[in-house]
Amino acid sequence: MIRIIKIGGKLIENDAVLNGLCDELSACYRDSVLVHGGGSMAGQLSARLGIRTRMIDGRRITDRETLEVAVMAYAGWANKKLVAALQVRNVNACGLSGCDQKVILAHKREVKEIDWGFVGDIDRVDTGVLAGLLHRQVMPVISPITYDGAGQLLNTNADSVAGAVAVALSRIDDTELIFCFDKPGVLLDVNDADSVIPVLDKEKYAGYLEQGAIHAGMIPKLDNAFKTIKAGVKSVRLTDPCHLDGGTVLR
Amino acid sequence: MIRIIKIGGKLIENDAVLNGLCDELSACYRDSVLVHGGGSMAGQLSARLGIRTRMIDGRRITDRETLEVAVMAYAGWANKKLVAALQVRNVNACGLSGCDQKVILAHKREVKEIDWGFVGDIDRVDTGVLAGLLHRQVMPVISPITYDGAGQLLNTNADSVAGAVAVALSRIDDTELIFCFDKPGVLLDVNDADSVIPVLDKEKYAGYLEQGAIHAGMIPKLDNAFKTIKAGVKSVRLTDPCHLDGGTVLR
Repeated sequence: MIRIIKIGGKLIENDAVLNGLCDELSACYRDSVLVHGGGSMAGQLSARLGIRTRMIDGRRITDRETLEVAVMAYAGWANKKLVAALQVRNVNACGLSGCDQKVILAHKREVKEIDWGFVGDIDRVDTGVLAGLLHRQVMPVISPITYDGAGQLLNTNADSVAGAVAVALSRIDDTELIFCFDKPGVLLDVNDADSVIPVLDKEKYAGYLEQGAIHAGMIPKLDNAFKTIKAGVKSVRLTDPCHLDGGTVLR
Repeated sequence: MIRIIKIGGKLIENDAVLNGLCDELSACYRDSVLVHGGGSMAGQLSARLGIRTRMIDGRRITDRETLEVAVMAYAGWANKKLVAALQVRNVNACGLSGCDQKVILAHKREVKEIDWGFVGDIDRVDTGVLAGLLHRQVMPVISPITYDGAGQLLNTNADSVAGAVAVALSRIDDTELIFCFDKPGVLLDVNDADSVIPVLDKEKYAGYLEQGAIHAGMIPKLDNAFKTIKAGVKSVRLTDPCHLDGGTVLR
């Protein structure tokens, strides 16, 4: 079983959370792939550099300057910070961005009503490179900077990277995709941390949706999770970074 | 024969030079390792962020903020820019910093008269990781961010990284260390590009020194080059990035 663990940029910036995640990973790191974001770091760096970020519907437009900032923040700072934090715990981590050994190829998103700029939608994940590292007991730590095969780096949503990596690896082994977030799991009552739903299948999910029991903010995340299961991933887990075997399991 | 090619940050920023180097590398890329700097990028980024760089004797003090900038500029932007430029020429490049698979371990420079901050002096290069990549026809592209084995990233001089990598690899194969710079080679007359000395050995070098024929700025570079030869490197070449088989060869 290969685990693909996704952690957002905001969580990495919190040292206690970062250390908690790395402790968890060091206890059981074999056959794990880490995918990270770095959104707030890029935003902070843009703000400090006086780069105006254009947003549409709450999503960032990646112009040339914003791409440069994203590469520095994600492939540079966030990636190496994570790798160093893992290495000190004897996890032999290796940072990768999409261009490295062309591990994640993407194409620039087509311009329709909105030109998102240098944003990449994923075409191909090189499972050979990842399997080779796992075979040598190295943990790939993947930044969401992808590559178009023609010299252009692209900015990609880290959840999409994690999903694509998990789906691709499910062709060579069973996979579990773990989304770390700031809740202990999917909650029946958003104000009660003890109301975690331990297991959720499509039928149960449909029932909860009908009752209106699922918080609206969770619905796109859960819909996407069920899509990756349909595409071959064995299970998706939503949990906090310090309990990688807890939370809610979707099957 | 393994070639270790070092390119400075200033040269990478010039697109014509970057393209020239990558064209050269694509014509003959087997068994090559690229080591890059990124000095001026870090300086520019620091200036834009309003970070005051403390310099002593023309050398930068790496405080915590400066380290963060160096990691972003070297391990992030410079590294991924080079990897993408190589990939588009069918060179299967893979970016690495010292923390990745612990490929370059260093220790924080001891504080004597001057505290250089987060500057690393190299202890060990993992030749197994590099040889494994070369064996799979992957070109390692190494940023000068090293790792202390205890969670700390360090900033290291890129010439020192290239030298240490070449010396370490000379234990497994013959090595040539190539320093790219803005001259066609070591010149007898600094104003005459046709005055390149094609081959230089220790005796000839001593003779030129006695005559005062070597430009003062070149002497530390050449002294260091002869030291790496003494340490096991077969030859050191000083050339411009677009003529990797030209310039001056030191033996």
